[in-house]
Amino acid sequence: MTFRAAERSDVPVILALLADDDVSRARDGAVSESVDAAHWAAFEAIDADPSNELIVACAGDDVVGTFQLTFTPSLSRGGAARMTIEAVRVRSDRRGAGLGRQMMTWALDRGRARGAAIAQLTSDKSRAEAHRFYESLGFAATHVGMKRTL
Amino acid sequence: MTFRAAERSDVPVILALLADDDVSRARDGAVSESVDAAHWAAFEAIDADPSNELIVACAGDDVVGTFQLTFTPSLSRGGAARMTIEAVRVRSDRRGAGLGRQMMTWALDRGRARGAAIAQLTSDKSRAEAHRFYESLGFAATHVGMKRTL
Repeated sequence: MTFRAAERSDVPVILALLADDDVSRARDGAVSESVDAAHWAAFEAIDADPSNELIVACAGDDVVGTFQLTFTPSLSRGGAARMTIEAVRVRSDRRGAGLGRQMMTWALDRGRARGAAIAQLTSDKSRAEAHRFYESLGFAATHVGMKRTL
Repeated sequence: MTFRAAERSDVPVILALLADDDVSRARDGAVSESVDAAHWAAFEAIDADPSNELIVACAGDDVVGTFQLTFTPSLSRGGAARMTIEAVRVRSDRRGAGLGRQMMTWALDRGRARGAAIAQLTSDKSRAEAHRFYESLGFAATHVGMKRTL
């Protein structure tokens, strides 16, 4: 398994990974995998922003997983930076083989390398299996995650 | 009530606001209000990062509240940017007077002005009153918020 920053040519396969998810389907309806102007603009914004890293996990030449890391400077907790993990996906035919654990272990190492003192994520309440997975990685479900559309 | 980006001279009062909080005290022990090098570095990092806005709410010349906004580009949800709200504090002698609502209303407007499609925050599980407050502002507690130190 290798990890690298996503490139523009990875965007279609990343969108396919994001779309292939029951919770996203329930939330957004049939999730389109087609790449439109907003997706390209979002990729360019992520790619240009040193606070964000969109990562792909590869098996050979195949992208089999993705996640996004956001590094946020903060005055809380002694001025420590925090790392937020979002949009974690493993390709459906590769689930259950430990790839998610490798991805998150890489992410936590990356956070330490960039000097973050805390890692955080939110996970839909319905993803009980994901919560157990993150707890096994040392995460504690200490918070309620709240969202609203704007 | 006026809102503006925090300046370097606001850092001590912002730290005092962050420290004056029961959950932070329980988590971090006696929270020092003294400004050290890590805090100055964190302020400079926030100030230099266009993805982050550290805001103070003022009554006259007095800083009476603070919060931090982080804008994150994303390929999820149609390529929409998301706004994360962190480190929300109202000065203890000003609580219960609607200031928090004014602050969050300003924050949601700011998110719309910057083109974010979703606002998100996490709140410690013990802050039941805060959860009701955020629900009254249209937030839904759809997620579990998980954290771990690095």
